[in-house]
Amino acid sequence: MPVKLLEGKIIADQIIIAVGSGVKALKAKYGRAPKLVAVQLGENASSAAYIKAQAKAAASAGIVYELKTLPGTCTQMKTQALIDELKNDDKVDAIILQLPVPKGIDANILVNTISADKDAEGMHPQNLGKVLLGNNKIGPCTATAVMEILASTGLDLYGKEAVVVGHSRIVGKPLSLMLLNKFATTTVCHIATAERGVLKDHVSRAEVLVVAVGKAGVVKGDWVKEGAIVVDVGINRVGDKLVGDVEFEGAATRASFITPVPGGVGPLTTAILMRNTLELFKTRMQG
Amino acid sequence: MPVKLLEGKIIADQIIIAVGSGVKALKAKYGRAPKLVAVQLGENASSAAYIKAQAKAAASAGIVYELKTLPGTCTQMKTQALIDELKNDDKVDAIILQLPVPKGIDANILVNTISADKDAEGMHPQNLGKVLLGNNKIGPCTATAVMEILASTGLDLYGKEAVVVGHSRIVGKPLSLMLLNKFATTTVCHIATAERGVLKDHVSRAEVLVVAVGKAGVVKGDWVKEGAIVVDVGINRVGDKLVGDVEFEGAATRASFITPVPGGVGPLTTAILMRNTLELFKTRMQG
Repeated sequence: MPVKLLEGKIIADQIIIAVGSGVKALKAKYGRAPKLVAVQLGENASSAAYIKAQAKAAASAGIVYELKTLPGTCTQMKTQALIDELKNDDKVDAIILQLPVPKGIDANILVNTISADKDAEGMHPQNLGKVLLGNNKIGPCTATAVMEILASTGLDLYGKEAVVVGHSRIVGKPLSLMLLNKFATTTVCHIATAERGVLKDHVSRAEVLVVAVGKAGVVKGDWVKEGAIVVDVGINRVGDKLVGDVEFEGAATRASFITPVPGGVGPLTTAILMRNTLELFKTRMQG
Repeated sequence: MPVKLLEGKIIADQIIIAVGSGVKALKAKYGRAPKLVAVQLGENASSAAYIKAQAKAAASAGIVYELKTLPGTCTQMKTQALIDELKNDDKVDAIILQLPVPKGIDANILVNTISADKDAEGMHPQNLGKVLLGNNKIGPCTATAVMEILASTGLDLYGKEAVVVGHSRIVGKPLSLMLLNKFATTTVCHIATAERGVLKDHVSRAEVLVVAVGKAGVVKGDWVKEGAIVVDVGINRVGDKLVGDVEFEGAATRASFITPVPGGVGPLTTAILMRNTLELFKTRMQG
């Protein structure tokens, strides 16, 4: 059986259409569209691309999008003051702090300041805790995007062997909770697994493999189990090419489904950000 | 090498002594000891035993302990009103809602009402989220107790193969995050793993095995890897005996360390509850 490509763009377009309908209905009810504000500290090439994608997705979904920028030299206190102002602005429904932030700025404190109610990225501790409890309405964008991609395959995760490589707070850890909530048997590997020399052992038994490390070729193509679903979250620049964390060519000959890089998880992340914004708006307006 | 018993009671006593010193110091500073209030709805044999242990541990640590009981027939609204009152009482530092609650009562809503600041059990979403982020000062009592037991063995978890059986919100899921924060390669198994027929495969590769299912003998003794550390969270009544989830006799011949049941994790859970209470008091008083 030839491998099927999991193109996030297609799912992302569907989500944006659904969010657009939701926005329209709520706008008719409440007299205004949801508003998402992005806070950018200093300049950064990768977040510049993300911001562009956000503005475009927001426009498609009918969400009001505003970008606030502060110089890279701004202090914690100044940034905090801006976020406080946005948090207290009744017309702002969702806030995203663009990462990475400049040196000397504590992003954790800023995300706490955003408050769970306006946390567009789903990274406030209260929203992460709800992921653990399995009653979250919004979720961390990339982890949620991975779950959407898995859902698009039609596979029932119940009892499946899922292996996540990378245990970041943004992807690996929340994703492992989401997989457990679907009753996948879930293993999380990371740098210490690789150092122990057993990463290949874990990867090669994965029926569902998600790699989110940020290092080109960290998973070799011939490690992939026959028929596995492979979701590659990594985007790495190698020469003038963008590649994932998994060796695509080799993996594609063995997997049943695989995400391309770019064009896999990336576009979906932005769509989930819009869906989170809509959910936050809905919850706020319903009181 | 003969197996070593991991007796939670000994670690619990040490924690209670440390909490007692902390209480004494803060009492001298702030003029009062921390106060923990337990809310019990209806009657229940297992929570009656836990309440007795709580009162005793609190007395040892110098924590003021109060038990509030409502009849098993009380409504959600009445319970909510009581918890609201406690939350707004400036002299109450920590609240524990005894589980299980009677039918028709939504414990989740009540735990949210307690608020993260007075959440003695560490089960409020905001406190669970901090466990994921790895910056929690308090943690779910049983999961934290397991981490204390593991620490008492002196084993560095970095790169170790950890397997958790049971993916409950109280033990399995938060514990998996704590193990990941220590860089163990972490697998969580559950009912769907057993139904798939691969529970034995996972258990038998575990260097660190934690079982929290609540079913006697769900893990067979001969599944245990030679030299493994085995922490058995289950407490099950079989005839007139209390037994764990792991077949103790068989497992003890193979493990390097094993918890007895009873006398393993159980006594430590109460000590962690006291430590959480002290931490909440400290944070509140420091503003």
